[in-house]
Amino acid sequence: MTTTPGATTGVDTAARRAALRARLTEHDLDSLLVTDLINVRYLTGFTGSNAALLVAASEDADEAGTVFCTDGRYLTQAAAEVPDLNRHIDRPVDVALLRGATGRIGFEAAHVSVAGFENWPKDDRDLVATQDLVEGLRAVKDPAEIDLLRRACAVADQALAELLAAGGIRAGRSEREVALDLDQRMRLLGASDPSFETIVAAGAHSAIPHHSPTSATLAHGDLVKLDFGATVGGYHSDMTRTFVLGRPADWQRDLYDLVARSQRAGCAAMVTGAAARDVDRAAREVIADAGQADNFTHGLGHGVGLEIHEAPTVGESGTATIEQDMCVTVEPGVYLPGRGGVRIEDSGVVHGPDRARPGYEVFTLTSKDLVEL
Amino acid sequence: MTTTPGATTGVDTAARRAALRARLTEHDLDSLLVTDLINVRYLTGFTGSNAALLVAASEDADEAGTVFCTDGRYLTQAAAEVPDLNRHIDRPVDVALLRGATGRIGFEAAHVSVAGFENWPKDDRDLVATQDLVEGLRAVKDPAEIDLLRRACAVADQALAELLAAGGIRAGRSEREVALDLDQRMRLLGASDPSFETIVAAGAHSAIPHHSPTSATLAHGDLVKLDFGATVGGYHSDMTRTFVLGRPADWQRDLYDLVARSQRAGCAAMVTGAAARDVDRAAREVIADAGQADNFTHGLGHGVGLEIHEAPTVGESGTATIEQDMCVTVEPGVYLPGRGGVRIEDSGVVHGPDRARPGYEVFTLTSKDLVEL
Repeated sequence: MTTTPGATTGVDTAARRAALRARLTEHDLDSLLVTDLINVRYLTGFTGSNAALLVAASEDADEAGTVFCTDGRYLTQAAAEVPDLNRHIDRPVDVALLRGATGRIGFEAAHVSVAGFENWPKDDRDLVATQDLVEGLRAVKDPAEIDLLRRACAVADQALAELLAAGGIRAGRSEREVALDLDQRMRLLGASDPSFETIVAAGAHSAIPHHSPTSATLAHGDLVKLDFGATVGGYHSDMTRTFVLGRPADWQRDLYDLVARSQRAGCAAMVTGAAARDVDRAAREVIADAGQADNFTHGLGHGVGLEIHEAPTVGESGTATIEQDMCVTVEPGVYLPGRGGVRIEDSGVVHGPDRARPGYEVFTLTSKDLVEL
Repeated sequence: MTTTPGATTGVDTAARRAALRARLTEHDLDSLLVTDLINVRYLTGFTGSNAALLVAASEDADEAGTVFCTDGRYLTQAAAEVPDLNRHIDRPVDVALLRGATGRIGFEAAHVSVAGFENWPKDDRDLVATQDLVEGLRAVKDPAEIDLLRRACAVADQALAELLAAGGIRAGRSEREVALDLDQRMRLLGASDPSFETIVAAGAHSAIPHHSPTSATLAHGDLVKLDFGATVGGYHSDMTRTFVLGRPADWQRDLYDLVARSQRAGCAAMVTGAAARDVDRAAREVIADAGQADNFTHGLGHGVGLEIHEAPTVGESGTATIEQDMCVTVEPGVYLPGRGGVRIEDSGVVHGPDRARPGYEVFTLTSKDLVEL
């Protein structure tokens, strides 16, 4: 993965580490060994493929007790990306950091293998399994993250606009050709990569929620569902739009209108203080009232950020409360097996009540009207 | 990841499971819980994103005691890809399989997190940490795997030939433009993806062994190093070629000739029965004799297959012995910091002495002469 030049402008990793320290103190930990590379990136800005970070719970202003470790391949890159922390060059990075630590040391139990743990030095150390300490912080975005997500969404919007302007979604093209075309446009616009394997699903395939593009060709009368995103500076946008090739049949228009109403209800319910499951319910009820509850087979949305799926989960089993500056998707869908399906998805950020426009601000600006191609 | 249609033709996963059973018996295990998705794919053919496999050590012909588990999203796909095994649909897949198992159960300690292990049911079960049981088998390829690697290498060769024919490597283009162009050509030729982030390194950048393409433009007189591969049916090709833009300077020609001689020596030494470290030495001595030992800073090669780096390691610290049907790279390089570097890399297979042409058969057929562009 490469970073977009300038992607880290305004990133305040020291503030993120300070927020983490407050959590360590709550958990009575002297330090946390961070081994998940995405969490290391979040806390330091480092984008290489091998690193760990030991965060001390109590620190003075220069963070002398917090140490970053990578291997010799990244000597220069680490100096550029992590100028503000003590850096150590050694392998294995986790063992090297543990050797210098004592007391109650938290570790990320979901990101350490049993074999890795067996290799750790244990004497004089109290190793405490923790879960989601950093992931919990990542659910609420800071201004630099919101800016990167906005840029990632803009790249996806622009790529889709170019694809449409070039007549790239047309009968006779294969799903795979359309996906490759769209992906390449995102790359040429500055995405390091698509956020995930782009979904292009035509005709009956549009009824499969997560369909891998095939050599099947688009045909007149098809619903065509595109679910895709751009990765910019490590942040993942996520958007779905559904088109129709030619004049829509009545059932296609009705299906589209239903999902669009559900999507608007979901966006309207995405406000600070709402229970995530209530946001899901607001959108789901629209679909249930139309007798299609069984054909909306997934959750309403999820957090987006350094991972394409992250906290919070916005679904029937979600336990989160929506907070200001969470970045989430709203993506209801109705799928009629063997006929076709419609999904409409935005990515955006939740603003608090003190803002001129509180609630959900959509970053993915491509029209949500039913477009006939 | 998508599979190429027909990619699994001729794959005999039952033979792979039989070979694994012999290893389980050696280790006195009643069964092995396979949780690494790549190992699950190797043993079953399943290409989805969530699955586990319990392999019973002693089995009758219909393998009634061996169970594959995935979740409901993959009901149809699992039936198509894993028709020959008992299939179970549940979540979490590892816990579901353990509930049905007793006795001495091996697990893949490098592929189970501490948090995951904590969630496992333990009573009546003796859970035994194992390492590399499946990875060890994967080092020696079967005919279907060799065929897929050959095809992956052919896609990379063809994409590079098209790029060269189109004048795609030229002064004024950025490293990133060249990489995007080459990657897209591989995709259009049937690669599901590049094998890894394609390296295009021009001028002084060519002296950085693993360089991420930048906006720096290629210039007359530059060495241009391309290290890339295609993924076909899950198998990863790997090839490096170094070109020069215009007429090479004497030092560039000398450097190229040195690396080419080293590469030939490495290919010649890659025979069954050789110690991997001796193969490395054969290529390294050529470079050392020219006084450049310190500028060949990595190992000579590695296995390729379902992962871009897998067993065996062919380097100074390698402990493997080269066996028939291992698929490996041979990739010496000499890097002159601030000036430029040359690497030449092939992927291929090792044939035994009973073959008409024993030794290393190269799959990456692009010319290794110094080409002036």
